[in-house]
Amino acid sequence: MTDANYAVAGIGNAIVDVVAHAEDDFIQKHGLEKGGMMLIDADQADQLYDEMGSSIESSGGSAANTMACLSSYGGSGLFVGKVRDDQLGRIFRHDMKGIGIDFHTPAAEEGPSTARCLVLVTPDAERTMNTYLGACIGLTPDDVKADEIAGAQVTYLEGYLWDPPQAKEAFLKASKIAHDNGRQVALSLSDRFCVDRHRDEFLDLVENHVDILFANEDEIKGLYNVDTFDDAFQHIRGHLQVAALTRGGKGSVVVTPEETHIVDAEAISRVVDTTGAGDAFAGGFLHGYTRGKDMSTCARLGGLAAAEVISHFGARPETPLSQIARENGLD
Amino acid sequence: MTDANYAVAGIGNAIVDVVAHAEDDFIQKHGLEKGGMMLIDADQADQLYDEMGSSIESSGGSAANTMACLSSYGGSGLFVGKVRDDQLGRIFRHDMKGIGIDFHTPAAEEGPSTARCLVLVTPDAERTMNTYLGACIGLTPDDVKADEIAGAQVTYLEGYLWDPPQAKEAFLKASKIAHDNGRQVALSLSDRFCVDRHRDEFLDLVENHVDILFANEDEIKGLYNVDTFDDAFQHIRGHLQVAALTRGGKGSVVVTPEETHIVDAEAISRVVDTTGAGDAFAGGFLHGYTRGKDMSTCARLGGLAAAEVISHFGARPETPLSQIARENGLD
Repeated sequence: MTDANYAVAGIGNAIVDVVAHAEDDFIQKHGLEKGGMMLIDADQADQLYDEMGSSIESSGGSAANTMACLSSYGGSGLFVGKVRDDQLGRIFRHDMKGIGIDFHTPAAEEGPSTARCLVLVTPDAERTMNTYLGACIGLTPDDVKADEIAGAQVTYLEGYLWDPPQAKEAFLKASKIAHDNGRQVALSLSDRFCVDRHRDEFLDLVENHVDILFANEDEIKGLYNVDTFDDAFQHIRGHLQVAALTRGGKGSVVVTPEETHIVDAEAISRVVDTTGAGDAFAGGFLHGYTRGKDMSTCARLGGLAAAEVISHFGARPETPLSQIARENGLD
Repeated sequence: MTDANYAVAGIGNAIVDVVAHAEDDFIQKHGLEKGGMMLIDADQADQLYDEMGSSIESSGGSAANTMACLSSYGGSGLFVGKVRDDQLGRIFRHDMKGIGIDFHTPAAEEGPSTARCLVLVTPDAERTMNTYLGACIGLTPDDVKADEIAGAQVTYLEGYLWDPPQAKEAFLKASKIAHDNGRQVALSLSDRFCVDRHRDEFLDLVENHVDILFANEDEIKGLYNVDTFDDAFQHIRGHLQVAALTRGGKGSVVVTPEETHIVDAEAISRVVDTTGAGDAFAGGFLHGYTRGKDMSTCARLGGLAAAEVISHFGARPETPLSQIARENGLD
């Protein structure tokens, strides 16, 4: 194993978020899954966009948000994902550069436009997400470059990648390259609906391809079809090199074959928007992990990133996480 | 004069704001006018965008922001401006609809892309704006529809429209239609740099075409090339049906041929971002004016809108202004 060029290579859906306020009856009228992430097609996206209120646009995507946190801590990263060569695709690419993450995947020159997530924020501050995958469905194994993956300590995948048809092959290719080069592979289960859509494949991944698993309580219970966190915890023990399980205000539990750590959540004064908490945790955790920190320090770095991200609107950090790490004696 | 279809028809540059944080040395290195609005060409826009950090996109434009405030108070409005038929143009159009303002101007099908304002926010919360006018230069008199303008109580123009070459002709056409139909014409001087670029033409406008003038202290001093607010005030008296002069924390002064009103600024706990204060004042003022309110009530509605807009990032209101009017006994 040679020196790594990147701490983490993240593979994910390249998405621009389109965020608007909406009343509860708007959610109901359109039959949306409140608080969830639903996939919509181009016509549904056009219709929903047409009817929703004025909005704010910013780059998003689960793994891309994770990379933003890693980079904000000072970690080096690569992102692999597919945009179209349109204005939103250019915005996404610009913002990856702006946060200091390498992103070389060529834009699609034809086919669907850059992916958009239409996010509706109801008065209770919950977010209902409706994703049009657009150009993301064009991500193929060809977009995974052996030298780039071989040069990353960890290759990280968002579970949402199981939605576009060919992206999973890209991930399996990346996973093989990583392991052949003595690197590690991490997976985030993304959300409960995503677990429901792809349970069998995710179980196979966890058994056979993944070294580091990120999941929240809902997702890990969904994966094993059990009712309590403790039941899920008994299933996961011993199966993976690392399972980092987040529990919202209850903090996180990190499980390795040898040990279990229970780390409290960071105290924060006000939760504004929980979107991206899991992505941020993964970014902070992986930053510590790729710097050789112990498990409880990794979990604390994850928790600090999540605390920053949920204290304001938007899923990417506003305060440099490197500064927060310093203030907490974790640099 | 028949009943009006619209309280206000606003004519302005149709711009999408691209907002990023930047350090002072970035502003200096790129030779930007800190705190001002500078016009840049396509190449400069591409280069600056390439070098600035990750950003947030939202619909902007001076007159469009004014219309957003008018509509938020419950006023009916029309916007006239030119976008390209691209993704940013679609975003701009969507957001006009989302705030309840009619916008029928056809998008350009060729030529430059939709206008962008690259906004750099320095750590002192000042905003440095760099505008690529793009498709705005395609606004022509043909885009001004006689029936629409004839049906608006007030036709409102942003001074920035004097920058694109043909837009001023569109405004002069609109001004004539308005007056021929017994309607009124309002102008905002936009900013000090804009006044410097177009002083002679603005003086002619104020003398011969405009019934209602909006200007801040800097702009009105610039227009008359004088050093004190009182000197400018002496110049403006008697020249216009209404001059609404804003003075930041000192409130506003409204001058008519018969009377002068001095209205204090609204108390606000924290100024976050002063961008759009003038636009918001004009929107609130015109809402009161077109409902037949007295001058000091108009100025208070303007002041409340400005106070809302400067209490958060972004130049359009987040809290419905109709609600703020009710809370202040002004509905």
